[in-house]
Amino acid sequence: MSTIADVARHAGVSVSTISNVLNGRVERMRAETLERVRAAISALDYRPNRAAQQLKTGQTPMLGLLVPSIANPMYGYIAREVETSAQERHGYRVVLGNTYRNRDKEVGFFDDLLAHGVRGVIVISSLADERHFEQAVQRGLVMVSYDRRATPGASSAIDHVSVDNHEAARLAAAHLIERGHRELAFVTASGLTMSRREKIRGFRSAAAAAGLAAHARVIDGSASSDYGDSEMADVGRMLAARIAAERPRPTGLVAVNDMLAYGLLAGLRDAGLSVPGDVSVIGMDGLFLSSLMSPALTTVRLPVPAMARTIVERVIGRLADPDIPAGEFLFAPELESRGSVAPPPASASASASAPVRRRRT
Amino acid sequence: MSTIADVARHAGVSVSTISNVLNGRVERMRAETLERVRAAISALDYRPNRAAQQLKTGQTPMLGLLVPSIANPMYGYIAREVETSAQERHGYRVVLGNTYRNRDKEVGFFDDLLAHGVRGVIVISSLADERHFEQAVQRGLVMVSYDRRATPGASSAIDHVSVDNHEAARLAAAHLIERGHRELAFVTASGLTMSRREKIRGFRSAAAAAGLAAHARVIDGSASSDYGDSEMADVGRMLAARIAAERPRPTGLVAVNDMLAYGLLAGLRDAGLSVPGDVSVIGMDGLFLSSLMSPALTTVRLPVPAMARTIVERVIGRLADPDIPAGEFLFAPELESRGSVAPPPASASASASAPVRRRRT
Repeated sequence: MSTIADVARHAGVSVSTISNVLNGRVERMRAETLERVRAAISALDYRPNRAAQQLKTGQTPMLGLLVPSIANPMYGYIAREVETSAQERHGYRVVLGNTYRNRDKEVGFFDDLLAHGVRGVIVISSLADERHFEQAVQRGLVMVSYDRRATPGASSAIDHVSVDNHEAARLAAAHLIERGHRELAFVTASGLTMSRREKIRGFRSAAAAAGLAAHARVIDGSASSDYGDSEMADVGRMLAARIAAERPRPTGLVAVNDMLAYGLLAGLRDAGLSVPGDVSVIGMDGLFLSSLMSPALTTVRLPVPAMARTIVERVIGRLADPDIPAGEFLFAPELESRGSVAPPPASASASASAPVRRRRT
Repeated sequence: MSTIADVARHAGVSVSTISNVLNGRVERMRAETLERVRAAISALDYRPNRAAQQLKTGQTPMLGLLVPSIANPMYGYIAREVETSAQERHGYRVVLGNTYRNRDKEVGFFDDLLAHGVRGVIVISSLADERHFEQAVQRGLVMVSYDRRATPGASSAIDHVSVDNHEAARLAAAHLIERGHRELAFVTASGLTMSRREKIRGFRSAAAAAGLAAHARVIDGSASSDYGDSEMADVGRMLAARIAAERPRPTGLVAVNDMLAYGLLAGLRDAGLSVPGDVSVIGMDGLFLSSLMSPALTTVRLPVPAMARTIVERVIGRLADPDIPAGEFLFAPELESRGSVAPPPASASASASAPVRRRRT
């Protein structure tokens, strides 16, 4: 079994550099060094000695991971990346909790982590109120929050790791505008989480930049059922029926996430509309399932593996050194073009809206 | 018996302060507070449940859950049900491990569970060789295996919980035969796991019962890529191209699971074939995503919530009483009919196979 000294020798760096990587203190490390250390850890199949680690830190090498539901493929994807990174790079195991967006379940999860001596926790929550998170931090948890920005102006003891949601929705709307769409809608579930708010702002800013502010709607709704895995898809399917009946009907739809987009595709089909013949649809997330849809879904891809690595490095780094201040880490999304976007139908152009007419005269 | 709330009241502090003392997090506590808490615990003769439990059993109220990849929506679904059942019904938390079907990763997970004092583990593995499971049991783990039958004739210390895979595939094939299909194929990834073997036997037995034994093929293949979440779908997509070129082309396909069926739908579409116009497809699993496919996928539904409850009850029951012998628990599947199955095209009937001709003369 290889030791930390073996890894240091293999990578050509000092033992403390290895230790820094293992404990997530990589902010000031050159990317090339980090890569070499990771390669050495992997090549030697190095697994840090947990007992020694525990003696040193008084901590259990486990992290909590709180998700609304692991049956949602996006959370499953993130959980896979988080667990793999925690385990392979840091020797940490992951305790999983499904909370169904229920505040009491979230609080109960924090209680149990503390009772088990687990001090690091990663939360994916869509609850707008973050106060129980701050309370958990006061009780000793080191927390990283995924997919929500820090409250502007407020100081927080919580790390925030997120994609740039504003930019993601802006990219999606700009892509539709570029393909000629003049009637746009952002389609989402009811309830303004922080990430949804950011996306709506990004969507509107792209529309405004193209002089289409008056032609950019937000369409939202709730699932008829209780919380379930198909909830987001159900919302999309239900809203598709409403969208099909709107006049003027939007020809370019930005969905708040891929799952809701799948529901839109199914619902537009139910309504006898063709995608992208009659309506174009863009999702957000970049799930592998999107390439299996009919048509394959154009989407804005989130850099999940890189975000997961940062999440894990932050929580483990701050467990090792409580003096590291909490921060905010924004990642850039990327458009992935597939079959669900095309120019709007000719009939939509004929009845086109004001800004377009202005340009033509 | 007094509760933690009683102790908190008696000491005039918060419940979380008591929890901190019980878990040794006293570094930042004032000596006076600590003393008051200790006095209250002693006065009320308070014994925390967990400590009592651990004293009695030497165990942590946690279970391990080992999956090939939690990003696979089927494993995400099972994990959600397992975690919810363990937590809500038994107060247990779940430690998650992704193993990418790698034996060493499975063994490493067992090592870590034992190091953390976790004694119960649920394994979802498609590795045919189960010896490292038996070894882990000898080292003290109580294990429930999902989706594989016990080796016939061999005694096992491992519980096996599974759907009746033979019946699932038999149902699927019988449904196609009932709709008039005479050229059938079972489509699967390469590598004979125990559950795949059972499914193939069930598929063949339905064909044989209809006199179609010579017209029931097994078509398998490997993904070109390494292990990935889209692996099963990739296999389906790749095999669809091969199936499109076969003569006689099978008109009724039974997919080993829903994910592979999604790949078949996409691949048949790529090949210019219509589902169900030219080819009918049935999946197995019953994921909610199947209703979003185009066409919506007919599938054989597994009773996942009931299976998850049994899995959790077995592992926790046998942790409490090691004398309970291991057993095998088979659950009945159910056909869920949607849009991906129809009678075969007329051309397929015209060139129909021997058993059909015999019936007509």
